[in-house]
Amino acid sequence: MATINKNYRKLASGYLFPEIARRTKAYQQANLDKKLHRLGIGNTTEALSSEIVNALHEKIDKLANNETYSGYGDEQGDLALREALVGYYKKMGIDIENDEVFVSDGAKPDSANIQSIFSSDSIVAIQDPAYPVYVDSNVVSGRSSGFDVANGVYKDFVYLKGNIENQFFPPPPKEKVDLIYLCSPNNPTGAVATKEQLEEYVSYAKKHKSVIIFDAAYNEFISDPNLPKSIYQIEGAKECAVEINSFSKFSGFTGVRLGWSIVPKELSVEDSEVGEINRLWFRRQVTFFNGASNISQAGGLAVLSDKGLAQSKALVAYYMENAQIIKETLQELSLDVYGGTNAPYLWVKAPNNLKSWEFFDQLLNQCQVVVTPGSGFGSSGEHFVRFSAFGHRQDILDAVKSIKENLKI
Amino acid sequence: MATINKNYRKLASGYLFPEIARRTKAYQQANLDKKLHRLGIGNTTEALSSEIVNALHEKIDKLANNETYSGYGDEQGDLALREALVGYYKKMGIDIENDEVFVSDGAKPDSANIQSIFSSDSIVAIQDPAYPVYVDSNVVSGRSSGFDVANGVYKDFVYLKGNIENQFFPPPPKEKVDLIYLCSPNNPTGAVATKEQLEEYVSYAKKHKSVIIFDAAYNEFISDPNLPKSIYQIEGAKECAVEINSFSKFSGFTGVRLGWSIVPKELSVEDSEVGEINRLWFRRQVTFFNGASNISQAGGLAVLSDKGLAQSKALVAYYMENAQIIKETLQELSLDVYGGTNAPYLWVKAPNNLKSWEFFDQLLNQCQVVVTPGSGFGSSGEHFVRFSAFGHRQDILDAVKSIKENLKI
Repeated sequence: MATINKNYRKLASGYLFPEIARRTKAYQQANLDKKLHRLGIGNTTEALSSEIVNALHEKIDKLANNETYSGYGDEQGDLALREALVGYYKKMGIDIENDEVFVSDGAKPDSANIQSIFSSDSIVAIQDPAYPVYVDSNVVSGRSSGFDVANGVYKDFVYLKGNIENQFFPPPPKEKVDLIYLCSPNNPTGAVATKEQLEEYVSYAKKHKSVIIFDAAYNEFISDPNLPKSIYQIEGAKECAVEINSFSKFSGFTGVRLGWSIVPKELSVEDSEVGEINRLWFRRQVTFFNGASNISQAGGLAVLSDKGLAQSKALVAYYMENAQIIKETLQELSLDVYGGTNAPYLWVKAPNNLKSWEFFDQLLNQCQVVVTPGSGFGSSGEHFVRFSAFGHRQDILDAVKSIKENLKI
Repeated sequence: MATINKNYRKLASGYLFPEIARRTKAYQQANLDKKLHRLGIGNTTEALSSEIVNALHEKIDKLANNETYSGYGDEQGDLALREALVGYYKKMGIDIENDEVFVSDGAKPDSANIQSIFSSDSIVAIQDPAYPVYVDSNVVSGRSSGFDVANGVYKDFVYLKGNIENQFFPPPPKEKVDLIYLCSPNNPTGAVATKEQLEEYVSYAKKHKSVIIFDAAYNEFISDPNLPKSIYQIEGAKECAVEINSFSKFSGFTGVRLGWSIVPKELSVEDSEVGEINRLWFRRQVTFFNGASNISQAGGLAVLSDKGLAQSKALVAYYMENAQIIKETLQELSLDVYGGTNAPYLWVKAPNNLKSWEFFDQLLNQCQVVVTPGSGFGSSGEHFVRFSAFGHRQDILDAVKSIKENLKI
């Protein structure tokens, strides 16, 4: 008699984005004449750049020819792409070896799956607010005994609460934890950890033999040269941190699907042999995964060429101009706005002590602007909403115009 | 203090294919003048067909244009592709709804991940020999207490032993089990279950409330119209079976990465609510996965068009001619050959009671032919090797010529 993995029943509710889609659809159906401005989901909108497009066409021509066709590649990614990623880190002054690089189909799968190589009784610390995948993947893997409805938190997790006082980058926990999820630049708050803040975490992790899972998917949106773009810019981080990254937001690969993780050979935990964590992730990928699409990988290789990098940086600059436009508008309206300077997300305090979903509904009903309610990212996100800077310029201009003209604060 | 998932240490050895690669490389380095004939890994060799190639180029042109660019799609796959898959089943007389179809990046990830929605104390039955992923994914998920070296099996698993007597498709187990992995056409034996055999399994599963995980990745290689191409051709199968399939072998997508699973809403287990298994897999995919590449999905849609299907069927026919050539040669040498008629794999008894790796070495050293040792698929695979029919025709002809001329039996 088969039975289900009952941890799934502990999940508090549906995923955030389907609920946004539901409310948006209902509004649209009741207001067919109104045009919606979507600043909710962080979905890229601008075309792939020419270097990438050329490389993709070329790869398809190769697959169309018996002489140049190729099938299965290495599960951990084509060597050429891994070497290009080694070069990417080299430019930041970081030495990574190509067997520490694991190419994947995106930062989301890696963020969700990385927990599986660690013990199921690991104590997990998560930033609050945070990208829901860190929490959800650990809940279904049995690391929480259930949702505490009264407090809006999962039992057994340690929440690192971001707030205005700590500028949304909380310090390490007081207690001992095993796995620590950090996202910098942060989704949803747009906060970026300073070198000193990351040093504190590395020092904590080394002291307690914890593992930091560092989600750097937005690192290319950092323009301030003093802010670290990789946790490996911190001394000792290789001994205690995995880094996850993605081509999604940097190069418009949200639909193309390509990411990577770095699992250093120096990384160790209480009971691991030398290099074992690196080998465990290799074994995990070889067993559960069959490599990212070879077409997507050809695109990724083009991104990392000099011309490709320049084009992707131009794309980032475009989105960051959007962020600036949104930020200025919201500040003109005297709203409290965080993030949006080194990250494509703006974290905005709801006026009049409104709750997140209330402000979401207000923006939808009054301005036809769709945002993401902060409470969907954890209880500390309550009273905030997230604006995404991904969008065509004209849509962003239309959205801020509508906010300026119609928002009744 | 973080600790590792110690179930990984229970895995008996490295994955089969890296060991083949190691021995092959060593031989090649010692014999630089010899040309190898690779009939080991089931990796496609022929170019993508024109319908697919055109669709891929078109999709890239869309991604190159701001007006037609798209980013994230639905995690469970684009609706158009899911509807085309509904149509694919319709042609077999099977009614599937589009929210029962889950597009993925391949049959391997789905085969490995499907166990995660079931209880961790599930008793697992696996065909022996079998594709290693079924075993390995359940070992690292904690469903075996370890490897029994003396018997070459994992403890706590129920092995369904294939042998000459049952023509490599064993009957259901005597005892009660929870999850049953079946692969038909079988990798590695090439055996195909008859309608009657699958009826026996469906009847067993319904009686014991077990779930059949049916890997149909090679179903398009079936030419005998009496053999079932989907488990849903068996009455009642929707209540007890998940079906996994792939574009990899049918359409040359091994590197492009695209597959799907069917999780019927009727499927239920002991403690599930109506439709819950379907919803669990949806939740699993939404949490751990972000959709298959939109480029690959455009290719998959082309495969399912009338012209695309015809071209893929022609590709299958080509590989099956290879299978016929290999089969005839081996039979001329009086070897016992199974499979290769409705499947791209030939399952060959090693002569002179040789062990699998001994015959592997003999074929490598005498004929420069690389095969896959049957023992790598489980203890019942001992004394067999698998020949793969994937290859360019000339390479297949060269391989069989070398076997005819050089194999000393």
